[in-house]
Amino acid sequence: MTVGPFSQDELDEIYAFAVDLGRKAGKMLMERVDQRISGANGSSNAFEEKESAVDIVTQTDEDVEVFIRSALEARYPSHKFLGEEAYAKGQSRDYLIDEQPTWCIDPLDGTVNYTHIFPMFCVSIGFIVQHKPIIGVVYAPFTDQLWSSCTGRGAWLNETRRLPLIHNPTPPMPANAPSQCIFSCEWGKDRRDIPDGNMHRKIESFVNMAAEVGSRNGRGGMVHGVRSLGSATLDLAYVAMGSFDIWWEGGCWEWDIAAGAAILLEAGGLMTTANPPEDVDTAPIEDVRLGSRLYLAIRPAGPSATETGRETQERTVREVWRRVRNLEYSRPGA
Amino acid sequence: MTVGPFSQDELDEIYAFAVDLGRKAGKMLMERVDQRISGANGSSNAFEEKESAVDIVTQTDEDVEVFIRSALEARYPSHKFLGEEAYAKGQSRDYLIDEQPTWCIDPLDGTVNYTHIFPMFCVSIGFIVQHKPIIGVVYAPFTDQLWSSCTGRGAWLNETRRLPLIHNPTPPMPANAPSQCIFSCEWGKDRRDIPDGNMHRKIESFVNMAAEVGSRNGRGGMVHGVRSLGSATLDLAYVAMGSFDIWWEGGCWEWDIAAGAAILLEAGGLMTTANPPEDVDTAPIEDVRLGSRLYLAIRPAGPSATETGRETQERTVREVWRRVRNLEYSRPGA
Repeated sequence: MTVGPFSQDELDEIYAFAVDLGRKAGKMLMERVDQRISGANGSSNAFEEKESAVDIVTQTDEDVEVFIRSALEARYPSHKFLGEEAYAKGQSRDYLIDEQPTWCIDPLDGTVNYTHIFPMFCVSIGFIVQHKPIIGVVYAPFTDQLWSSCTGRGAWLNETRRLPLIHNPTPPMPANAPSQCIFSCEWGKDRRDIPDGNMHRKIESFVNMAAEVGSRNGRGGMVHGVRSLGSATLDLAYVAMGSFDIWWEGGCWEWDIAAGAAILLEAGGLMTTANPPEDVDTAPIEDVRLGSRLYLAIRPAGPSATETGRETQERTVREVWRRVRNLEYSRPGA
Repeated sequence: MTVGPFSQDELDEIYAFAVDLGRKAGKMLMERVDQRISGANGSSNAFEEKESAVDIVTQTDEDVEVFIRSALEARYPSHKFLGEEAYAKGQSRDYLIDEQPTWCIDPLDGTVNYTHIFPMFCVSIGFIVQHKPIIGVVYAPFTDQLWSSCTGRGAWLNETRRLPLIHNPTPPMPANAPSQCIFSCEWGKDRRDIPDGNMHRKIESFVNMAAEVGSRNGRGGMVHGVRSLGSATLDLAYVAMGSFDIWWEGGCWEWDIAAGAAILLEAGGLMTTANPPEDVDTAPIEDVRLGSRLYLAIRPAGPSATETGRETQERTVREVWRRVRNLEYSRPGA
């Protein structure tokens, strides 16, 4: 397989470099955790508040981004680089990814988890060519779990278990989805108590997905479980594994999802917009726009007796759209 | 330290046996996962529905309980045994634990996660003497994480990291808790859309904890994050680690929390009832009743400049009680 200017050999080399870089960056994250645990350097208090009590950035975040950026710029000087920390400090919120080969990385996704030493934090490294995420590396160092993918090479957990985990054969989405599905969602940072604001729209959507079938004007979805991990990247990694069936989220950014999207798509997942179109029954199900801040992901699925795998996924997308509210997130250029 | 009839030496021996048993039982859980992943024995479809779509039990569940029970009865024939699977098949929902040394185990907590191969599942082995949980072993085999504790010996992750993770020194609960806290909660299985029923009371409580400070008639808690893992046992393990600050839950049973409670209490955590008393400011904060089905756990905490660690925990309990609704769960004998 070739992608843009890259041969499969070139992609393989870039993939190997990214996996190695992800592991090294993750080890940096874990070293700082170990320093905090041992009480070295008084580092347990080295937190700096940013924007709100829900958004903490640590020096680690910035250091790891510099490490990743330096390594990538030295090895691939012609590639563009977009990192969460550098972006957040800039003036613009424009969507900056174009046709060029671009690294889109988050040195530390799950920052709140990291500050509390809840293991659901990770480094996230995505490589995007012609707007498509084609390489993804996600490494969660506390539990030493690495998810990775390269176009043409499959998606993997710890480089040994192929994703989705059950692929002999991969089961279809359940006939009565979202029932029997694990639904992954996040409360996020926007907690403003505005009637019909994003927080309340999210909660209404969560409750629709959770409530018994037949309730809530036919919207009750009776999902099998509702999960919130606090990391968009890891949510996507678990959808790619097939552990979560549905992830629905608004408000995060392309660096939160670039690597996870690469892994999900290579594993056979589907990713589109969180916001239901006017006609949920017939609207085309378009590929996700990375910068849209509105995401709906469905796990990899195989055929049922009467549908292709893709058909079972699309049916699930429409069933989710029937139950969720439109969220209001936007940004220039996306 | 002695507990009831047991010397510390005897407790140490029982503790070592329980840790070994937990690892072996966890390996059984993981072998079955590996069989499903490889497609062996057609076992990926070997699920049996129970009570509702949200409550699946597998043959594995029963097999692992028999394995644990047999091992314990052979080694400690005088001890009582209470297992989730055996209990669930009985006629009675009475609370059966008395003064006698009793093993209270769940062969597989996080059953829904297990059926979906989401790694947040575990085996849970608790040992209770004179109504106090004094030994706890929780093993999550997918990520090879083991939490354990014995009265007088501390609480540990993987037998090497002392809990809570940050203990040099252990920080107090935040002055403005529940703000800055990670709040752990579960949607549970009861999804009946009854006005003012348990599901809606839970959701109202979650929203109070999450919403910005100043909102919701002063109840907005602006917690740092809301997390739902789908395993009461692992929720408690993460509270014991200090990863989660607050866990609030109703509806689960003593086998879901016995081992986790032992670990949490040995680590220095506090556990009491989920339901707010009439006067939240002055009501005594009583020790949890294991069979109450109503649980509020606060992470281990050290002193602040003006309070003992326990005082910072009790202050947090009262702030949670101000924000949550009473839940209606009951059972005979508890």
